[in-house]
Amino acid sequence: MLKFYYTANSCAVASRIALEEAGADYELVNIDFSINQQRSPDYLKINPKGRVPALATERGIITENPAILAFIAQSHPAAKLAPLDDPFAFGQIQAFNNYLASTVHVAHAHGRRATRWADDAVAIDDMKRKVPETMSACFELIEQQMLAGPWVMGSTYTICDPYLFTIASWLESDGVDVARFPKVLDHRNRMAERPAVKRALAD
Amino acid sequence: MLKFYYTANSCAVASRIALEEAGADYELVNIDFSINQQRSPDYLKINPKGRVPALATERGIITENPAILAFIAQSHPAAKLAPLDDPFAFGQIQAFNNYLASTVHVAHAHGRRATRWADDAVAIDDMKRKVPETMSACFELIEQQMLAGPWVMGSTYTICDPYLFTIASWLESDGVDVARFPKVLDHRNRMAERPAVKRALAD
Repeated sequence: MLKFYYTANSCAVASRIALEEAGADYELVNIDFSINQQRSPDYLKINPKGRVPALATERGIITENPAILAFIAQSHPAAKLAPLDDPFAFGQIQAFNNYLASTVHVAHAHGRRATRWADDAVAIDDMKRKVPETMSACFELIEQQMLAGPWVMGSTYTICDPYLFTIASWLESDGVDVARFPKVLDHRNRMAERPAVKRALAD
Repeated sequence: MLKFYYTANSCAVASRIALEEAGADYELVNIDFSINQQRSPDYLKINPKGRVPALATERGIITENPAILAFIAQSHPAAKLAPLDDPFAFGQIQAFNNYLASTVHVAHAHGRRATRWADDAVAIDDMKRKVPETMSACFELIEQQMLAGPWVMGSTYTICDPYLFTIASWLESDGVDVARFPKVLDHRNRMAERPAVKRALAD
C-alpha cells in the first residue's frame, strides 16, 4: 500500500486529490509543520529535502508534485488522469505542472518562506511585498494562455487540474484580486464540486 | 523536424544535450538574451513565458526542461534515456529533474534574476549574497543522497545526467567551493567526455 506524507493547506493537497481521483489504496501520514516535523530526523530519512509531499511505494520514495502526479497517473491507468501513450500530450501536461512548481509556487513561497533566499529583514519584507504582483502575473498567463477550459487541458480532466486548484486556492491570501481571473475562478468552483476533492479536503 | 529555441550557457543546454544523445533531427534557433530577444513579440508567440528552452514539434510547443527531457526520452525510445515502462523508476527521474528545476535552478536565479522577486537594492544584494550558501546546500544533498554514481540513477545514463551537468557547470560562478563535491565533479568530468555533450557545447 502507498503511504502519503502530507500537510493540510500545503501544495501536497494536489497529489492527495489525484490519489483520491485514482481510487488509490493509500495511508495518509500527517506531517505537522507547526512543530517543524518536516525537519525531524525521522522524516528526513523519508525525504531528505524536508518537504511535503512524499509518496512511499513498495520500491521507495517519490517526491515533488509533478513527479508524484505523473506516477499516480501512470500507475493507475484506469483512472485516465493523463494521456499515457502520447509523448506530446503528456509533455504538455508536464510543462504545465512544471510551471506551477518552478515558477508559480516559487513566487508564492517568497511571501512565507523568504528566508530560503535572503536573511536581511528589508529583503524579506520586500520579497513579501512583491508577491501579489508576481502571483498576479503568473495567473494572468494561466488565465489568458494556459487554461483551455473547462479543464486545464480542455475537455479532459488530468493531473494538471488538482495542482492548479491547489495553488489557485492561495490567491486571496497572496493578496491577488481574483476577480481578474474568471476562468481560474470557474475552474476552482468546478473542482470544489468533485467528490475526490471533497474527500481530500474533508479533514 | 523539431525546432529548439536555445541560449548558450542557459539551462537550455540540458535539453540540447538530450537532443544530441537521442540523435534527434532538430533545428537550433538561438535566442539572444543580450538584446532581450526572449521578451520579443515574435518569441512570446512561441513561449509566452519569455524563457528558454522551448521545443517546437509538429503538434505544438513544449516548454520547461523536465517536460522537454521526458518528451525527448519518450519520443526517441531507442536512445534509452529513461525507463519508459516503469512508473516508479520514471517517477524517480522526474523527481530528480524537478528538484533541479524548482529548487536548485531557483536558488541560482537569485544571483542573476533577483528582480523577479524583489525591487529594493538592499534585497537584491542580500539575495545575491546568499547564493553560495543555498547552492552549496543543494549540492550537499545531491552529493550525499541523490547522485548514485557513476550516473545520477546509477549504472544507466538518463535524462537526469545532462540536467545535473548543466546546473553543476554554474557552481564556480555561484561562488561554491566545488572541491566539497567530488562525486559531482567526477560526474561533470565524465559528462564532458561524451560526444553528445561536446557537440552540444561546440558553438
